[in-house]
Amino acid sequence: MPKPRITVINGPNLNLLGTREPSIYGHKTLDEINGDIAALAPELGAEVTFFQSDHEGELIEAVQRCLGSADGIIINPAGFTTTSVGLLDAIKAVALPTIEVHLSNIHAREEFRRHSLIAPAAVGQISGFGADSYLLALRALAARLGAGVRG
Amino acid sequence: MPKPRITVINGPNLNLLGTREPSIYGHKTLDEINGDIAALAPELGAEVTFFQSDHEGELIEAVQRCLGSADGIIINPAGFTTTSVGLLDAIKAVALPTIEVHLSNIHAREEFRRHSLIAPAAVGQISGFGADSYLLALRALAARLGAGVRG
Amino acid sequence: MPKPRITVINGPNLNLLGTREPSIYGHKTLDEINGDIAALAPELGAEVTFFQSDHEGELIEAVQRCLGSADGIIINPAGFTTTSVGLLDAIKAVALPTIEVHLSNIHAREEFRRHSLIAPAAVGQISGFGADSYLLALRALAARLGAGVRG
Amino acid sequence: MPKPRITVINGPNLNLLGTREPSIYGHKTLDEINGDIAALAPELGAEVTFFQSDHEGELIEAVQRCLGSADGIIINPAGFTTTSVGLLDAIKAVALPTIEVHLSNIHAREEFRRHSLIAPAAVGQISGFGADSYLLALRALAARLGAGVRG
Amino acid sequence: MPKPRITVINGPNLNLLGTREPSIYGHKTLDEINGDIAALAPELGAEVTFFQSDHEGELIEAVQRCLGSADGIIINPAGFTTTSVGLLDAIKAVALPTIEVHLSNIHAREEFRRHSLIAPAAVGQISGFGADSYLLALRALAARLGAGVRG
Amino acid sequence: MPKPRITVINGPNLNLLGTREPSIYGHKTLDEINGDIAALAPELGAEVTFFQSDHEGELIEAVQRCLGSADGIIINPAGFTTTSVGLLDAIKAVALPTIEVHLSNIHAREEFRRHSLIAPAAVGQISGFGADSYLLALRALAARLGAGVRG
Amino acid sequence: MPKPRITVINGPNLNLLGTREPSIYGHKTLDEINGDIAALAPELGAEVTFFQSDHEGELIEAVQRCLGSADGIIINPAGFTTTSVGLLDAIKAVALPTIEVHLSNIHAREEFRRHSLIAPAAVGQISGFGADSYLLALRALAARLGAGVRG
Amino acid sequence: MPKPRITVINGPNLNLLGTREPSIYGHKTLDEINGDIAALAPELGAEVTFFQSDHEGELIEAVQRCLGSADGIIINPAGFTTTSVGLLDAIKAVALPTIEVHLSNIHAREEFRRHSLIAPAAVGQISGFGADSYLLALRALAARLGAGVRG
Amino acid sequence: MPKPRITVINGPNLNLLGTREPSIYGHKTLDEINGDIAALAPELGAEVTFFQSDHEGELIEAVQRCLGSADGIIINPAGFTTTSVGLLDAIKAVALPTIEVHLSNIHAREEFRRHSLIAPAAVGQISGFGADSYLLALRALAARLGAGVRG
Amino acid sequence: MPKPRITVINGPNLNLLGTREPSIYGHKTLDEINGDIAALAPELGAEVTFFQSDHEGELIEAVQRCLGSADGIIINPAGFTTTSVGLLDAIKAVALPTIEVHLSNIHAREEFRRHSLIAPAAVGQISGFGADSYLLALRALAARLGAGVRG
Amino acid sequence: MPKPRITVINGPNLNLLGTREPSIYGHKTLDEINGDIAALAPELGAEVTFFQSDHEGELIEAVQRCLGSADGIIINPAGFTTTSVGLLDAIKAVALPTIEVHLSNIHAREEFRRHSLIAPAAVGQISGFGADSYLLALRALAARLGAGVRG
Amino acid sequence: MPKPRITVINGPNLNLLGTREPSIYGHKTLDEINGDIAALAPELGAEVTFFQSDHEGELIEAVQRCLGSADGIIINPAGFTTTSVGLLDAIKAVALPTIEVHLSNIHAREEFRRHSLIAPAAVGQISGFGADSYLLALRALAARLGAGVRG
Repeated sequence: MPKPRITVINGPNLNLLGTREPSIYGHKTLDEINGDIAALAPELGAEVTFFQSDHEGELIEAVQRCLGSADGIIINPAGFTTTSVGLLDAIKAVALPTIEVHLSNIHAREEFRRHSLIAPAAVGQISGFGADSYLLALRALAARLGAGVRG
Repeated sequence: MPKPRITVINGPNLNLLGTREPSIYGHKTLDEINGDIAALAPELGAEVTFFQSDHEGELIEAVQRCLGSADGIIINPAGFTTTSVGLLDAIKAVALPTIEVHLSNIHAREEFRRHSLIAPAAVGQISGFGADSYLLALRALAARLGAGVRG
Repeated sequence: MPKPRITVINGPNLNLLGTREPSIYGHKTLDEINGDIAALAPELGAEVTFFQSDHEGELIEAVQRCLGSADGIIINPAGFTTTSVGLLDAIKAVALPTIEVHLSNIHAREEFRRHSLIAPAAVGQISGFGADSYLLALRALAARLGAGVRG
Repeated sequence: MPKPRITVINGPNLNLLGTREPSIYGHKTLDEINGDIAALAPELGAEVTFFQSDHEGELIEAVQRCLGSADGIIINPAGFTTTSVGLLDAIKAVALPTIEVHLSNIHAREEFRRHSLIAPAAVGQISGFGADSYLLALRALAARLGAGVRG
Repeated sequence: MPKPRITVINGPNLNLLGTREPSIYGHKTLDEINGDIAALAPELGAEVTFFQSDHEGELIEAVQRCLGSADGIIINPAGFTTTSVGLLDAIKAVALPTIEVHLSNIHAREEFRRHSLIAPAAVGQISGFGADSYLLALRALAARLGAGVRG
Repeated sequence: MPKPRITVINGPNLNLLGTREPSIYGHKTLDEINGDIAALAPELGAEVTFFQSDHEGELIEAVQRCLGSADGIIINPAGFTTTSVGLLDAIKAVALPTIEVHLSNIHAREEFRRHSLIAPAAVGQISGFGADSYLLALRALAARLGAGVRG
Repeated sequence: MPKPRITVINGPNLNLLGTREPSIYGHKTLDEINGDIAALAPELGAEVTFFQSDHEGELIEAVQRCLGSADGIIINPAGFTTTSVGLLDAIKAVALPTIEVHLSNIHAREEFRRHSLIAPAAVGQISGFGADSYLLALRALAARLGAGVRG
Repeated sequence: MPKPRITVINGPNLNLLGTREPSIYGHKTLDEINGDIAALAPELGAEVTFFQSDHEGELIEAVQRCLGSADGIIINPAGFTTTSVGLLDAIKAVALPTIEVHLSNIHAREEFRRHSLIAPAAVGQISGFGADSYLLALRALAARLGAGVRG
Repeated sequence: MPKPRITVINGPNLNLLGTREPSIYGHKTLDEINGDIAALAPELGAEVTFFQSDHEGELIEAVQRCLGSADGIIINPAGFTTTSVGLLDAIKAVALPTIEVHLSNIHAREEFRRHSLIAPAAVGQISGFGADSYLLALRALAARLGAGVRG
Repeated sequence: MPKPRITVINGPNLNLLGTREPSIYGHKTLDEINGDIAALAPELGAEVTFFQSDHEGELIEAVQRCLGSADGIIINPAGFTTTSVGLLDAIKAVALPTIEVHLSNIHAREEFRRHSLIAPAAVGQISGFGADSYLLALRALAARLGAGVRG
Repeated sequence: MPKPRITVINGPNLNLLGTREPSIYGHKTLDEINGDIAALAPELGAEVTFFQSDHEGELIEAVQRCLGSADGIIINPAGFTTTSVGLLDAIKAVALPTIEVHLSNIHAREEFRRHSLIAPAAVGQISGFGADSYLLALRALAARLGAGVRG
Repeated sequence: MPKPRITVINGPNLNLLGTREPSIYGHKTLDEINGDIAALAPELGAEVTFFQSDHEGELIEAVQRCLGSADGIIINPAGFTTTSVGLLDAIKAVALPTIEVHLSNIHAREEFRRHSLIAPAAVGQISGFGADSYLLALRALAARLGAGVRG
């Protein structure tokens, strides 16, 4: 069985991780988080690729490109979580198993951050565990994609 | 360092798992899920105990008892997720790291299931991965409690 | 054909019937109402059992116990009508034909009493006929369960 | 004691019963339902007359005419349930005991169908039992009008 | 100068005046009210004609007919006050000065009666003076139509 | 029978009438309107006194002073119509028949002007007839106070 | 293949077209619009019949009559667009392809005109093209009914 | 005159007082507060009994038991304040003078804590005085029950 | 220790107490209530001064004057309770312990009276005990100000 | 007269047409739809150009570029329909006749898709006819731009 | 050209500036702020006068007096910003260019402070710059009044 | 002290200034406005750079780049004012003093333009002064950044 391919997509301002409001988002940079993910992937028998953009259109197209190039998606839509119908539609269009992650616990923040437009199209949502949110998502997705490793 | 003690608390109707609306909640029984959790715990250097009740008062008291007997809580408040101020207050009172889990993706179901009253008092929320939601929560909590194991 | 077994479940404060706000709820005690129901049942070829509790958890478990012991449920959720997700989930879990009844016309009372959380999981709702609400429900349920008697 | 006279009033599109969305409204025609009602009435010592219209004004006037010609009303306001202040006012004007019935369980359908404008002026509401909703209402109304028959 | 012609239009259930909820609507019949109006009209140099219907369509057409046959309209839309877009559109279409009247003070009744859909298309609204509401409206409209008489 | 005494109370900015937004409020000054009212009063067998203030407290006290010095009140609360609980409470405290008037048709203006807090405590509301609103109110109040003159 | 039969149904006040608020609704009369439709129909291989009424009940019945006499419906519900559950239910009952049209762009008018109750039961909605809205609908419906002509 | 008997009922998590979020709820334990109440009671000529539970059903039944065993109730519904229709119904059923108390000022906390479902059935509400809230309530209730002591 | 100085501030229409809607507000005049307060103060080792006004501006200034002249405030904002941002800001500006009182139980009255704008800036709120509300507030405030007397 | 130039602008994910949720959006690719449009244009005497982007900014600039290069716009804003103030402002800025089209009937889908922010700035909206929505829009726009062809 | 006359009007509690919640409102007294304004005015070729009141009525009258005595208004409505229809109406009545200022950034505070009732009648709003808000407003108003000085 | 560096960022469609809806946005082009800003900056001892984009992603990145290259930000988010969480997060991430400006008075326009998502993260907001809004912001920001020049 081929290794499941997983694309990790990060939305706006996540390039600033480590410096941006560390009391909320933690001290790890995005590169460090991606490094942790890349380190865990082989353990779970999965292949990962990474994408980050501050542009809604590029995020939409990154999701579109997953069609054929990936078996599942981990996405932190960040500032587009509650507003991007385009991102929601892209996820529904490619119809790949998708997990929504958030570094902070969005349910403990401002009301306008709580109601994800994306979540109804996702397998599930993991929110509040900092960089670990991605690792948990990787386990969950690898498990689901039948990589022979339990989440 | 002593092993972190984790209490897993399940709310109403979760005793029916495996038979109850399996298309939504999956085919595993609660005992099987608890078995999986108990199997993973030693790997993560954690001790787990289990509690389930259909009674809000008993759930509140289970949370209260964690004070002194546990280092962290994994809770699936089920039907009390969106309404139980008492459960919220108990979690705030014991002030232990608590992770909220859901088998189904509550953000993809009826609107009234989406807005957890508990989540703002939790470290984070994991929703939509069936029995794996608990295992992911166990990893996240063990990692957080410093069990020397990455989530 | 075996006689259909029907469980009649009453929620909080219905034990006070006859003394509690009789201008709203009538002068019959719960025992008298249950007596009327028990008297009508054989006529309709049905068997009835009764349960009342002020505890949400006990009501949830009473519904759960119907699985295997009853063919249908008549329930007056009283104070839990508009808030108990747990009761709703129990009814959906057992998947037995359920009729919601109310002594008073809940649609003519305070706004917060009108919107039943339970009703969408029920066959139907009968509201406003005092003790007769139960007898009408018994006829409707017996008819539906094929007891050979029209409602 | 004279027999109680009961007028059964049906609103718009109920003339199509039997053909109209049978998965929601059932397979009986309105004539068949009326036949069932007419058959049950003598058993309950009641006299029934029938009226159906797609016109709000005619329904209002049918209610008005009950003043003097009927002792009670069974009404399925159908599409006027949630909007017709005129029908509400007519029922309050004639001040006869009125029972609101629905074939389908309106509490399990679109949100806009759930909040009856009529119900606060009715004795009670019966919803969800198909053609049986009318028979139950007839029993309830006959009982209330003192026909010597229990509902 | 020709006498201004005024059409007085009454909506559903106003035919019942005198008998319908007299504590709210008063003891005068519609004929008596119309008689009072007819008696005042010559004093104000106006001609009045009357129309009442329980049918929204007939009320719409009565408004339409005013085009060419009347110089102003006094309307008590009754049960259609808050819901009839058709009546609103008819009044805007004929573009005649229109006064909305109510026997009862709609602002002191149920919330759903307070927000008239018609009023924004009217010159003004008079509410709460029983039969006098019409006489006041007649004075106001006659004054406005230049009948040489002050309101 | 003594002449009924009527106090006409005007709220903020009505002192500017005639110059203030004449397309909405008309070209008459408050003195001219009061002159018209004073001229009509003897015809109706009533005595009138006038009060205007931009101060909510003075308006409240003007209403309070009516207790013993007036038999009825005509009030244009202007900018306090939708917000002054104090004015509402004063009117309820003196318990004199009170008519609310508005020069413009408040139901055809901004949404926030439509929902009078005062109106539920008034006999009725007259809105949209410019200076005539006061004269109509005077007729209605005089009629109600039994001055022997029909409104 | 027989020619598809299309019924064009117009709601209240559309009989006034040409004179009614022409800046909103245009200068063509309903007869002229119907003439244009009738002229285009043969080109598209379709047969058209016309109905207009100010009465909700008659509109409901016109829709009902389409069962058996028409293959598709073009409807401008006008003032009943946002309120008529009866019209919605009739359209769902006959289950014929139905297109909702509006002369004016309802999405650019008062908020209360924007949310059609009918549209969810229609194939689609065309709004804002004056008389052309009907011609576009005719093309769309003819195309859909397989008249061999592209929309 | 017999001494008035007062039952003091405390809801969920109040057993944790003294340790639970002391910055909000203060440093006194429930036993200490009850001690203070018991010390004040004789001064006011009243007898007090105490009840605490985390179970809604037990609280409902504690209220029910007051019928015959108490002359008045002091209740801190805690987490059930805003959601328990059952507790509201129990208080209305026993129809004893009831005072609602809160340690913290619920009107200065999260929005969802402010709107008590219980308060409309109570004599009054005292909120924000820590342990003193109970002593003030005791004075108010003793005064009301005619213990010869002013509040 | 100097005696704590307490200013008692009453809002609009409270000068009418005793005559104003006695079924809601009781039969005591404001002078009598103030007399009761003045009689209790020495017992509690406190000094009291009184202020009443129907003017929002004067109430704001009375609060402002407390800076330097009082150690605490008891305020019944009456009609300004739910609307006066100015009063709220004054209380926050002087930053003295303030207790909000109401004669009637505002939580059992019209919805618009329930949500105090002032309460979040107060120590607490006492509502529903008639004149006793003030005496309870005096005890609570004296206790808080360390007068050596328990509330 | 020069041929009217029409720019057809498509928003995010419409590049996926034919493969994306075909049960909702149909089986034609965007190229095929554009081909149909291009084929119809000469018949209507119009010139068409096409633009598609997943980027809100590019769509805004495509609209801006129409100033001078186009006489009218057909736009399917897709995921930006309900949120893009920037697109709305661009359309208002260029002030060219614009028609909004949707493949699916947005009024029959999720509530959040129904309320177009764009529509109030458009001539009209066509929704629900699949690829035909564009062809209908082309006819309507060509007709409006005076191409000598009726829509 | 005569110097533009500008009246600076301050609402309730602004007399307390410097002592009142300095973390929000800053450390300058109102006199110091007015001194700064008075110092800048000649530079901009403008004349300034000052008014402050805690009374809504006096503020309304201060605005009214500007008619004839001022060419523009700078107003900080403070506690009346979101509620005073009277102040709004006064500003609309005098029809002078008016600038609304706030010391704190009202858009970053409690929700109820954000939605100014006054702003729609103002030229613009400046919020969040402490005492500088007034100086910026002075520049803007002087520039607008053609004082020959750029803002 | 080094000169404070200020970046002026403009959102979508502001490149069209001068031609776009000049009655709302004025007749100056963006270049002319930027010229005015550049001319004022040296006077205030500040350095300014300019950026405009129609792309949300580019605007987010422009804000991100300010970290290290600017001491403060002036931003007109235009169409992204009320919806861009990404822009809000970028501003919070760089944590530089930011002033939000608008050419038009957004508080006097459509309701959906009034509630800025950005403003809570800004120092303040200036709205309604056309091109002067930027100059006022420059003064305010320069003053705040200690350029030795008063705003």
